Amino acid sequence: MTVTTGVPDLSGCTPAEARAAFRSGTTVPTSGVAPGFAQANVISVPRDYAYDVLLFAQRNPKPCPVLEVTEPGSWHSRLAPGADLRTDVPSYHVWQDGGVRDTLPDVTGAWRDDLVTFLIGCSFSFETLLRDAQVPLRHVEQGTNVPMYVTDRPCVPGGRLHGPMVVSMRPVPAHLVARAVQITAMMPAVHGAPVHVGEPEALGIQDLSAPDFGDPVTLRDGDVPVFWACGVTSQAAVMQAKPPFAITHAPGYMFVTDARDVDYRIV
Amino acid sequence: MTVTTGVPDLSGCTPAEARAAFRSGTTVPTSGVAPGFAQANVISVPRDYAYDVLLFAQRNPKPCPVLEVTEPGSWHSRLAPGADLRTDVPSYHVWQDGGVRDTLPDVTGAWRDDLVTFLIGCSFSFETLLRDAQVPLRHVEQGTNVPMYVTDRPCVPGGRLHGPMVVSMRPVPAHLVARAVQITAMMPAVHGAPVHVGEPEALGIQDLSAPDFGDPVTLRDGDVPVFWACGVTSQAAVMQAKPPFAITHAPGYMFVTDARDVDYRIV
Repeated sequence: MTVTTGVPDLSGCTPAEARAAFRSGTTVPTSGVAPGFAQANVISVPRDYAYDVLLFAQRNPKPCPVLEVTEPGSWHSRLAPGADLRTDVPSYHVWQDGGVRDTLPDVTGAWRDDLVTFLIGCSFSFETLLRDAQVPLRHVEQGTNVPMYVTDRPCVPGGRLHGPMVVSMRPVPAHLVARAVQITAMMPAVHGAPVHVGEPEALGIQDLSAPDFGDPVTLRDGDVPVFWACGVTSQAAVMQAKPPFAITHAPGYMFVTDARDVDYRIV
Repeated sequence: MTVTTGVPDLSGCTPAEARAAFRSGTTVPTSGVAPGFAQANVISVPRDYAYDVLLFAQRNPKPCPVLEVTEPGSWHSRLAPGADLRTDVPSYHVWQDGGVRDTLPDVTGAWRDDLVTFLIGCSFSFETLLRDAQVPLRHVEQGTNVPMYVTDRPCVPGGRLHGPMVVSMRPVPAHLVARAVQITAMMPAVHGAPVHVGEPEALGIQDLSAPDFGDPVTLRDGDVPVFWACGVTSQAAVMQAKPPFAITHAPGYMFVTDARDVDYRIV
């Protein structure tokens, strides 16, 4: 018998097991969950907004690499056969006119037949490969969600969508920064190489201890803050456009796919 | 004074000079033109078809990497400021109901305000880097267009678009195949690594000497046929959907951009 603590340990489970736990109501950030498999940002918008989202993503491929686009109304994913996009994400935001109306563990009751769902690459997908290469993951060590920041760097507008780039930050020991760059550069579909290394002020980030999404993380002596483009960018841009209705994951609470992280390595 | 032969030599010119030549009526395939700069497939469709094209491209990123999407009616490109997409491609096809109505060097008279233009990556963009690495380009040596073949490998349908993958083929000496793979793998936005090496029959290609587009090329002793996904795939899929109207480049007669080929290397 497993002794159950407050937070279930999903670091040894398969993607299907993780999704089943989330479907049953487990609500935890997904960094470290089902290691070795790709995770995705989720945005569901009315069909009328789908071209705008796809155009914005094409023009901003670093923050918004599109892994999948569903047919209108479908809750199925090619990246996770058997999964249900309405129940298998640990936490959802339901948006109305650009504001969060509800935060829910299940959006079956809010689903609509005209929703097109976009799965956008997530940097959690390269964390296993970083760890395998001995690059420490401070937010995992500290048991927190990854910190995310809204930068002062504007995205290229697309249709009705516009807004600043959002980044995730991981502290990396200075002698391992180059290794972290090399590993992630090989994975452009999950944000690729960092967009910025050190000097948070140059991105318009005034206070690393006050992230806009996720949790603050403590840098250890000799750590450099390294910034990757973040899929929350697409969520922020959609909300700037204030569609009448949308559903997204809650930042850090991602959709865990059956796609292997190494399948997104280009070599 | 330059002695003019039948075919002007554009192998030493800038992208702007090449576009000016095409605007003035020069009609040649663009392999080897303005070395060091990226080239693109061009597809202009009515706005009503734009989501289908973008969705099909997202689902088939190897043959259809999207470099740019214009605003409806615009003939300007961010990848070539000052260029005119209606005049600067050496040869265009004008399509009606899925068939070629005209082949023209200038489509200003056929342009429409609702046309959205897609620039799709082209394998000519990695040819300079192959040549720099001592990988010979047989079609350039032989002064012909690259051969392209319709395969029996279906693309993932997207909206009204569907169809087989089209590939370009370059003969590569056996001892240089690995080098060619390594170099092109680093450029996913211009088709990336080959999809197939050797064994044309396994792609459904019965006769290498009878390409579906472009010209046949002679393999030299010890050459292996190497196949890269080709942007003509998107043109073929659009035409399967039989939109009432469309404009494309003629295969092999590409839009020469100001973007440097190395800007599409991920490392």
